[in-house]
Amino acid sequence: MADVRVDISMSLDGYVAGPGPRSEAPLGDGGERLHEWAYKLRSFQAMHGRDGGEEGPDDDQLAAASKGVGAGVMGRGMFGGGHGPWDESWEGWWGDDPPFKWPIFVVTHHEREPLTLGDTTFTFVTGGVRSACEQAVAAAGKQDVSVSGGANVIQQCLQAEAVDRLTIHLVPILLGGGVRLFDRHPPEALEIADVVASPGVTHLAYRRAA
Amino acid sequence: MADVRVDISMSLDGYVAGPGPRSEAPLGDGGERLHEWAYKLRSFQAMHGRDGGEEGPDDDQLAAASKGVGAGVMGRGMFGGGHGPWDESWEGWWGDDPPFKWPIFVVTHHEREPLTLGDTTFTFVTGGVRSACEQAVAAAGKQDVSVSGGANVIQQCLQAEAVDRLTIHLVPILLGGGVRLFDRHPPEALEIADVVASPGVTHLAYRRAA
Repeated sequence: MADVRVDISMSLDGYVAGPGPRSEAPLGDGGERLHEWAYKLRSFQAMHGRDGGEEGPDDDQLAAASKGVGAGVMGRGMFGGGHGPWDESWEGWWGDDPPFKWPIFVVTHHEREPLTLGDTTFTFVTGGVRSACEQAVAAAGKQDVSVSGGANVIQQCLQAEAVDRLTIHLVPILLGGGVRLFDRHPPEALEIADVVASPGVTHLAYRRAA
Repeated sequence: MADVRVDISMSLDGYVAGPGPRSEAPLGDGGERLHEWAYKLRSFQAMHGRDGGEEGPDDDQLAAASKGVGAGVMGRGMFGGGHGPWDESWEGWWGDDPPFKWPIFVVTHHEREPLTLGDTTFTFVTGGVRSACEQAVAAAGKQDVSVSGGANVIQQCLQAEAVDRLTIHLVPILLGGGVRLFDRHPPEALEIADVVASPGVTHLAYRRAA
């Protein structure tokens, strides 16, 4: 069966976003530093329609994050549109042609009809992360499901033991505050699946222990 | 000049001791699991006067933690004796012949005369972690200083930018609570110095950025 995968950049002190996330700084103070390792890479450039960029182990990791993915799960904050009932004129942060190209299941408290933008259909799930993961697994067929974020949805998926593979890109910075990846008590037991070291970031892959 | 080094086991969720540390479980609930990777190793067995044990990358890491060390710093909790003024009949957790064999500087709020047990002399420092590190550097000569713990003293040393090299043995367990290594805001900028992977633990070494 398909794996449910989480792939996320984390500071050495455990944060996946800096202090004070707000609309003009959605990753909080300093949070963009979590992702700097990726900007220069060929796969990142390609995602944004540009040629060039660096290859190597970091690029392999970034490419692997979307390889073999057939469906996605994300939280409402990551889709966009604030809290409360939907303003359906708002179609999310992702523009007319979102980069996913696979079905996305958005975890929300508020019902909404599915929305197709370019090659990506967003389905709004009000039954919680477990239901969203199940629907995504069904949609992905033999491929994997990627839980993109935000941190809250990832925490809920870890707590629900719905994550088969967790990859942390550990960045040697200290944010000193913000949103911690492990802020709740995840009951999972993990095994080390893979470690890839590069000068600027350490890629740590874990699997749910059998 | 000598490096001030910290070498510590941490859970994937950032804890160096589990919830509820108390005299019968000084590492808190589950905290002993942080150190299980080390017990079977040759260097651990040798520290406890026994022959045998496993060799390999984990053992090399454990051996490296004390190699080249000429002095140590520890907090009062790790030396032992509770809070408040000293009961000088109490000579710490470490027995008649502590394993260190180098001078140890104990950070405490309460003055006490130096204490020699076997080949180890404990000097009690009331001037804070920076003073303890300076005295240890002077005592270590050309060798390094090891800050052993507890977490509070390590946090203070990180905050004081007194740590040159930080090695984290990252264990794939989630403790869900306890004492976090990075609970305060350490101002340091770090660089990755070394990453060593093994099936059960990932050894991550960082240096203070120049």
